[in-house]
Amino acid sequence: MPKTAGIILIGNEILSGKIADANAAYLCRALRALGVDVRRISVIPDEVETIAAEIAAHSRDHDVVFSSGGVGPTHDDVTIEGAARALGVAVVRHPALVALLSQYYGDKLTDAHLKMAEVPEGAELIGGESLRFPTILMRNVYILPGVPEIFRQKFEAIRERFRDQPFHLKNVFVRLAEGSLADYLNGLLRDFPALLLGSYPEFSNPEYRVKVTLESRDPTYLEEALDALLARLPGDAVVKVT
Amino acid sequence: MPKTAGIILIGNEILSGKIADANAAYLCRALRALGVDVRRISVIPDEVETIAAEIAAHSRDHDVVFSSGGVGPTHDDVTIEGAARALGVAVVRHPALVALLSQYYGDKLTDAHLKMAEVPEGAELIGGESLRFPTILMRNVYILPGVPEIFRQKFEAIRERFRDQPFHLKNVFVRLAEGSLADYLNGLLRDFPALLLGSYPEFSNPEYRVKVTLESRDPTYLEEALDALLARLPGDAVVKVT
Repeated sequence: MPKTAGIILIGNEILSGKIADANAAYLCRALRALGVDVRRISVIPDEVETIAAEIAAHSRDHDVVFSSGGVGPTHDDVTIEGAARALGVAVVRHPALVALLSQYYGDKLTDAHLKMAEVPEGAELIGGESLRFPTILMRNVYILPGVPEIFRQKFEAIRERFRDQPFHLKNVFVRLAEGSLADYLNGLLRDFPALLLGSYPEFSNPEYRVKVTLESRDPTYLEEALDALLARLPGDAVVKVT
Repeated sequence: MPKTAGIILIGNEILSGKIADANAAYLCRALRALGVDVRRISVIPDEVETIAAEIAAHSRDHDVVFSSGGVGPTHDDVTIEGAARALGVAVVRHPALVALLSQYYGDKLTDAHLKMAEVPEGAELIGGESLRFPTILMRNVYILPGVPEIFRQKFEAIRERFRDQPFHLKNVFVRLAEGSLADYLNGLLRDFPALLLGSYPEFSNPEYRVKVTLESRDPTYLEEALDALLARLPGDAVVKVT
């Protein structure tokens, strides 16, 4: 069975419109390229109980879960506490993280800095070979920071552990409007029920009116479905196939 | 009580990384400016049961709910069916929408087009005075299309119905790192427990290290909290206040 994933973005700054998240779109693209099926993204506030409930649900429903944000030294960084509560364990300081922080801050180390050594009890540290600071993995939940540069660095350091059977994709750009196209797509799905078929109208592009996406993990099935669609569509309907 | 809102983005194309959503960030900014508190964003696939469960939960948990995507004439447009199932009603063709579509498509009208006349039974049509096509409102759920231009037009046409007591915001940009700042923020929250206080590190900006956001619906409370923070911070820590 291919892997499923959930993504949890934690941060009042997203919900209140102060920043536009970039991590979810990045991670969706990266996971798709690896063959992982992202099933849900949740954006929730910096509140321990809400985080705990969300992590518990995502951890139960998906093979792997990624959280973004809420890790750091200030009052609004409560993701670790939420994760610990979700999984029914205590928050503890991890000796390896204490050592890293002591080394980095020297005699300027504060209690606030040491908050960044906290992990849910039993958590693993991974990906630390190539980065200054490792990623916290608790059961199937990867806890990542919200700052986009660091989020990406940390994910890149562990990405190969998620590689799965890839998706294959074909895009068919057509001149037909969706209203006329619908019957062709419904017909195609009757013959290829396992096809992942998307239809995306484009109102501002003069070249085509709809982008149709065909996807499958089975390249032969995909090619057969593509051939069937092209054979059925009116000859002048197809602008290009990519 | 000020209004709370939930946002549901419906679309495999977002989860599979084919497009980066722009509607949630737009809507979060717009609702915040109106004084509405967005509590959750969910991104889910084009699947009737998942949509139904999500709409039911959001409708119960928030004052108003906005869905984006999954409305249109093709097989993957199943938001209306999900909304109807969530609220325990049938899907019916709305006579006013049938009339609009008949007028627009004339004798080219197809069954696929008529799918766009479908609504959950009992739904209202709103905002149609200024737009060609009104928005479907079912109980507290506003059903909007995913195409960003149309999403915005439709929201703009109904935005005034959501106006509430506004949030007031001050940004304090500081040279301190979060580890040193944490104690000041914790102290501030002890004295101003109702303050909405955020702390956002910026690693690539040479001017400041952290943006601190202070928010309240009460402008006097906000000014008092701001004064208290500025009085406590070291004199050279503050870069600017906006």
